[in-house]
Amino acid sequence: MTGPVLVTGAAGLIGTVLRGGLPERGWSLRSLDVVPVPEPRPGEEHVVADTTDLAALTEAARGAGALVHLAGIATESTWPAIAHTNIDGTYCALEAARRAGVGRVVLASSNHATGYTPRPDGGLLREVDAPPRPDTYYGVSKVTMEALGSLYADRYGLDVVCLRIGSAFPEPTTTRHLSTWLSPGDTVRLVDAALRTPSPGFAVVWGVSANTRRWWDLTAARALGYEPEDDAEVYAPALVAVHGEPDLTDPVHARVGGEYATAEFDSDNFDV
Amino acid sequence: MTGPVLVTGAAGLIGTVLRGGLPERGWSLRSLDVVPVPEPRPGEEHVVADTTDLAALTEAARGAGALVHLAGIATESTWPAIAHTNIDGTYCALEAARRAGVGRVVLASSNHATGYTPRPDGGLLREVDAPPRPDTYYGVSKVTMEALGSLYADRYGLDVVCLRIGSAFPEPTTTRHLSTWLSPGDTVRLVDAALRTPSPGFAVVWGVSANTRRWWDLTAARALGYEPEDDAEVYAPALVAVHGEPDLTDPVHARVGGEYATAEFDSDNFDV
Amino acid sequence: MTGPVLVTGAAGLIGTVLRGGLPERGWSLRSLDVVPVPEPRPGEEHVVADTTDLAALTEAARGAGALVHLAGIATESTWPAIAHTNIDGTYCALEAARRAGVGRVVLASSNHATGYTPRPDGGLLREVDAPPRPDTYYGVSKVTMEALGSLYADRYGLDVVCLRIGSAFPEPTTTRHLSTWLSPGDTVRLVDAALRTPSPGFAVVWGVSANTRRWWDLTAARALGYEPEDDAEVYAPALVAVHGEPDLTDPVHARVGGEYATAEFDSDNFDV
Amino acid sequence: MTGPVLVTGAAGLIGTVLRGGLPERGWSLRSLDVVPVPEPRPGEEHVVADTTDLAALTEAARGAGALVHLAGIATESTWPAIAHTNIDGTYCALEAARRAGVGRVVLASSNHATGYTPRPDGGLLREVDAPPRPDTYYGVSKVTMEALGSLYADRYGLDVVCLRIGSAFPEPTTTRHLSTWLSPGDTVRLVDAALRTPSPGFAVVWGVSANTRRWWDLTAARALGYEPEDDAEVYAPALVAVHGEPDLTDPVHARVGGEYATAEFDSDNFDV
Amino acid sequence: MTGPVLVTGAAGLIGTVLRGGLPERGWSLRSLDVVPVPEPRPGEEHVVADTTDLAALTEAARGAGALVHLAGIATESTWPAIAHTNIDGTYCALEAARRAGVGRVVLASSNHATGYTPRPDGGLLREVDAPPRPDTYYGVSKVTMEALGSLYADRYGLDVVCLRIGSAFPEPTTTRHLSTWLSPGDTVRLVDAALRTPSPGFAVVWGVSANTRRWWDLTAARALGYEPEDDAEVYAPALVAVHGEPDLTDPVHARVGGEYATAEFDSDNFDV
Amino acid sequence: MTGPVLVTGAAGLIGTVLRGGLPERGWSLRSLDVVPVPEPRPGEEHVVADTTDLAALTEAARGAGALVHLAGIATESTWPAIAHTNIDGTYCALEAARRAGVGRVVLASSNHATGYTPRPDGGLLREVDAPPRPDTYYGVSKVTMEALGSLYADRYGLDVVCLRIGSAFPEPTTTRHLSTWLSPGDTVRLVDAALRTPSPGFAVVWGVSANTRRWWDLTAARALGYEPEDDAEVYAPALVAVHGEPDLTDPVHARVGGEYATAEFDSDNFDV
Repeated sequence: MTGPVLVTGAAGLIGTVLRGGLPERGWSLRSLDVVPVPEPRPGEEHVVADTTDLAALTEAARGAGALVHLAGIATESTWPAIAHTNIDGTYCALEAARRAGVGRVVLASSNHATGYTPRPDGGLLREVDAPPRPDTYYGVSKVTMEALGSLYADRYGLDVVCLRIGSAFPEPTTTRHLSTWLSPGDTVRLVDAALRTPSPGFAVVWGVSANTRRWWDLTAARALGYEPEDDAEVYAPALVAVHGEPDLTDPVHARVGGEYATAEFDSDNFDV
Repeated sequence: MTGPVLVTGAAGLIGTVLRGGLPERGWSLRSLDVVPVPEPRPGEEHVVADTTDLAALTEAARGAGALVHLAGIATESTWPAIAHTNIDGTYCALEAARRAGVGRVVLASSNHATGYTPRPDGGLLREVDAPPRPDTYYGVSKVTMEALGSLYADRYGLDVVCLRIGSAFPEPTTTRHLSTWLSPGDTVRLVDAALRTPSPGFAVVWGVSANTRRWWDLTAARALGYEPEDDAEVYAPALVAVHGEPDLTDPVHARVGGEYATAEFDSDNFDV
Repeated sequence: MTGPVLVTGAAGLIGTVLRGGLPERGWSLRSLDVVPVPEPRPGEEHVVADTTDLAALTEAARGAGALVHLAGIATESTWPAIAHTNIDGTYCALEAARRAGVGRVVLASSNHATGYTPRPDGGLLREVDAPPRPDTYYGVSKVTMEALGSLYADRYGLDVVCLRIGSAFPEPTTTRHLSTWLSPGDTVRLVDAALRTPSPGFAVVWGVSANTRRWWDLTAARALGYEPEDDAEVYAPALVAVHGEPDLTDPVHARVGGEYATAEFDSDNFDV
Repeated sequence: MTGPVLVTGAAGLIGTVLRGGLPERGWSLRSLDVVPVPEPRPGEEHVVADTTDLAALTEAARGAGALVHLAGIATESTWPAIAHTNIDGTYCALEAARRAGVGRVVLASSNHATGYTPRPDGGLLREVDAPPRPDTYYGVSKVTMEALGSLYADRYGLDVVCLRIGSAFPEPTTTRHLSTWLSPGDTVRLVDAALRTPSPGFAVVWGVSANTRRWWDLTAARALGYEPEDDAEVYAPALVAVHGEPDLTDPVHARVGGEYATAEFDSDNFDV
Repeated sequence: MTGPVLVTGAAGLIGTVLRGGLPERGWSLRSLDVVPVPEPRPGEEHVVADTTDLAALTEAARGAGALVHLAGIATESTWPAIAHTNIDGTYCALEAARRAGVGRVVLASSNHATGYTPRPDGGLLREVDAPPRPDTYYGVSKVTMEALGSLYADRYGLDVVCLRIGSAFPEPTTTRHLSTWLSPGDTVRLVDAALRTPSPGFAVVWGVSANTRRWWDLTAARALGYEPEDDAEVYAPALVAVHGEPDLTDPVHARVGGEYATAEFDSDNFDV
Repeated sequence: MTGPVLVTGAAGLIGTVLRGGLPERGWSLRSLDVVPVPEPRPGEEHVVADTTDLAALTEAARGAGALVHLAGIATESTWPAIAHTNIDGTYCALEAARRAGVGRVVLASSNHATGYTPRPDGGLLREVDAPPRPDTYYGVSKVTMEALGSLYADRYGLDVVCLRIGSAFPEPTTTRHLSTWLSPGDTVRLVDAALRTPSPGFAVVWGVSANTRRWWDLTAARALGYEPEDDAEVYAPALVAVHGEPDLTDPVHARVGGEYATAEFDSDNFDV
């Protein structure tokens, strides 16, 4: 691959992690966000653009070797906001890649694409056993993201890897995170694998660390070359001390999407 | 159920079939389209509204007992057209139902939601073995439709039945239709079943007649009470005489979506 | 004339008729619609674009020898839908022709531009005796279409022929159609004449077959070279048997626009 | 009639004339513009609203006895500006009247609706002999205005009077104005007549003073009760002294629309 | 400076004054408005464009030596109208200048940017003692105009002169105008100075004639080279005869913005 | 004051600080964001809405005792994004308060409203000596925010306090922050004071902690009752050890806006 990796949403939480970690793995970066990225590194290109502006995005994609699409609202919101920013934004990212001749796209999908899926009675949940079952409009946008990615792979031959990211935070802060955490280091490892694996075609994989309490299967992600190194369990004593041992029958623990898949996130509950 | 069935897209091909057939099965209709329905029957209510106008749709849904959502672009188009009419339109249909207290929604999905899925080596293809694999932007909109339906079932308790309609035309006109035809009579039977079945929760079923050459499994549809009566095979001699026996290795026959899943439908090919 | 005829709305009812009939009269076609035209013929160019996208339309018009503008909502609808699709769409068609150097445009106007005009006591109604008197928002859009056509002829020297189409269906299905039918074959003949007639400047002509019960004058259309060959009267026995002889004092028969010019089409009547 | 006369565009040139003259003829006024009217008189109601805001306009129309619609761009402009402000604005004015139960609407049409119409060889030009032949996008918007007015009269029974205004300025300033001037006093008389005449149904009349050099027939306007009192001829000596006697073969004098109907107003000529 | 002066809003009141006066001071003009400028002079270029159309404005700015931005709503209006036309319009003017390489921009600001500022107890009010204190949405748009101008001067090195225009009318018509009048001749002198002064950087100056009753300081304007020649006082006898001597404690006289800074302009007062 | 404090942008950095600190000072909260606030506290109301949706915002403001407006893009972005989210959003916040009868509004302005203002030679910079001099589009939006606040105070009598926030982060991370830091605790104290001070009318105050190296005057803020308790100087040894003593002649230290007021933030520099 030649040319830098265009990262959309580069000023966000995950974008900041990648901006720190990808260069030392040999990737040069072109960082794009609707706001300027803070403190661009030497050699880092940066662009301010809205990911729903197809012309600007196509322009930004010219000469890039790959595109990592992180931009979008990162949690539940109103439908118009989600439809515009996340759904139209993903279309623009893929179409910009196609127009600019960028052959590989990594999409930041989410566990919330299938958030109402229940925890299996035992064993690990494979991606193929977790078809779309979104818990929010946000989750619907991630189903659409995966569908668009599939279309661009099938129709135009792009390599498209969808990462169903778990809980990508600096540290786990809830007992659910003991299962779902994706550590900063593993975030870099996962994206690096998705960029590096030869000819993935279309793939959907969980994005989660090697957590002891993990119940999402990493076979598919490992097939891309992903080798997680972190485990949330080191935070378990502290978190359990505060919150108690998780009750796995509680919907927060019994469904992929956690709190998002509970009545707490009904839009009726958002109103005063 | 009390109150009429609100049918969106009532002036279209399938809407016209339902307007003819549902009343004699005891359903009263409220027909909605962006154009007036031609020749409304006695007792048929009719409304002109755009399905992307949430306020108008909610108003139209008041007092309805169920909503059958057919409105939308019925084939491939540009992304902005599909995103607006089909994706936003489906959100509005479901949200209007929720706001108006309509408890059941039938959604006109399509085989093109999974159009790149290959024909199995033998046997019938179940819906659960045909996850999203759209062949067009149109297909992406149908994936999103199913995802939105799933959300409204899980989050708000609506009954939502998605019909992955095959080829809903008066008669089969290609040899592919020998497998995929959904006859007018069976269209009525299928929607009637989706309206009548008790508490379906969320369901996705193929919409196809009892065609001899069918390779889409009807077990799930039959579980809703659907009993197809037509078979495209009666048209087979005439169609085969003209077009020859279908070559099942031809992508048109080897994938769920037929022509849509071939290079012919690349948007690059649409340009001059 | 060199270059193909660009036909907008090519996937619609009339577009399909023209795609079948114009090539055998020697016209090569470039078919444009917001959805792909089904089964393009050998030699037929095809484009997917929205006729309200001026840039796309201008691009599509480059190199064309003439433009036949059929795209638009083909019946009554809400004002926003009509204003956007039909009025802005017609502006874009004419402006695209001008920018691309296309010298001739045929516009699909409608009898509904003057739908409230009464049937004359006797004799035939000439176009000049039927000034704008629309029966619907749809009809208003056709008045605007003719006005825009007139402007582009006067201001820029384009040849613009407006066809006030009657009832363009495969067969007549109401007793009104015995007067107003435009057969598929005559549709082709009429458009062919509008494309072929030397230097028409600006013209508005009825589009109707040689129906025995016709009351719209064809002198102007014939002056373009149109020679209709069909007569709805062959369907009269069957239609009269079912519906009875038409009562010419009934508004449906006493006004140009038929049902559109009756209270049935008041927008108040569309509401529940 | 009860209730004030709602005047849109009240802060404009003609609006200011009417605000001065209508009250002394017994009309109470509700003046509406997108900017505040300067110096409202005692008893004058005033509203700031955009005439393309249907909700605001309907609100403003409640309780009004009649609506005089002057708002809009008063000369040529770009198509998007004309389509939005003039065409959508007129729809909103008529629809607001209908919703608010206002039974009479006076529309400020323009001679430019038929600006390319040539001067007759002799005699006066009647409105019925001057069908739509616009000279500009502005003129197209006036054709659409008349068509919408006709529809609201036919479909909803509103009284709608369209005034094809000539040159409504304080004084004539060109030799063309010697024919086309509508004096401020006659502007008031004309609108007063249009408001007062019993049951006009739908009418289109020229709006011009009793100019000696007039070639537009005032029979129809007089039938509404309009009695013009001014004649531009008193300005003739001064204007002819400066500009010479008009050459009636010059297009500026030979067509209804004057300069608008000359190449000077081609949009190509507007560009640098 | 080479290239013509691009004047936006050239068909308006001030634009017409400048079109008359700037050429005789040696400036060639390119006049732009959303409507055609009436009677373009020999050598005057003219363009029809909307100032919120950045692409069109940039195109129009190519080759210009300076830009005088007058376009916009010239009084109070609704927020959406002001935000679109005045705020976005000013951004487009400055950004078009930057993209086209035009190094100097003169902006028509207004006293209403600081309309609630009280009259000083004695002496003259300097611009630096009149920070933003708008009296209307219109005034807010002028504050934003000055802020955008400041940014383009600081960030891109453009010369930007903001004229806080007083009452730019042919003649004073109120006793307030005795203080605030900017005569047509002085309008030309002021803009001429703003165009001619060497390297002004960023400046904000009052735009007012040498009125005897003036209380806005002209030191800053004179520093640009402005030498006013007119004085409203010659109209004082007539105005005072009609209206009486102004009561300087009346808010209309006690605040920069006059009537705009009184309850009369509360938007609540605009409603019926 | 009765009724909760409506906080817009409640899920952001500052919103999270306020959600933690205001309740313990006796304020009940209604938290609003375009995304759900994480982990609402007992007694905390929460709403998902877009601050550019005036109807939703007005609804959310009903019954509130005050409104703290934090929502918006918190750094530089493209003009369309800033104009829509920050400028229209602020209008909506103020207008919603007015419509809902909320008498006090606290606005999150920014030092970037005057970012190009230079550091005084000595002493502290008062707000009145720092008129608008924005360093970015973001800064322009804050100038407009202050202007809108001023208008709503003058025209409608609202109490409006604008906080020109410095660097509101958990800890100082640059040597500039040694001057500009606003600690989380002081953020709460400042907003508490702005909510509590009697009848502030319209006020603009710096939002900064009691930093030893501070050069913005806190007299005005203290007049509202603000008593800062934190000083960034405790972080000075560590920061100076890493970055060295700041060079006060470096533009980053010599202007209010720091890096924003340097060429680094030219939009030209954002492009690839």
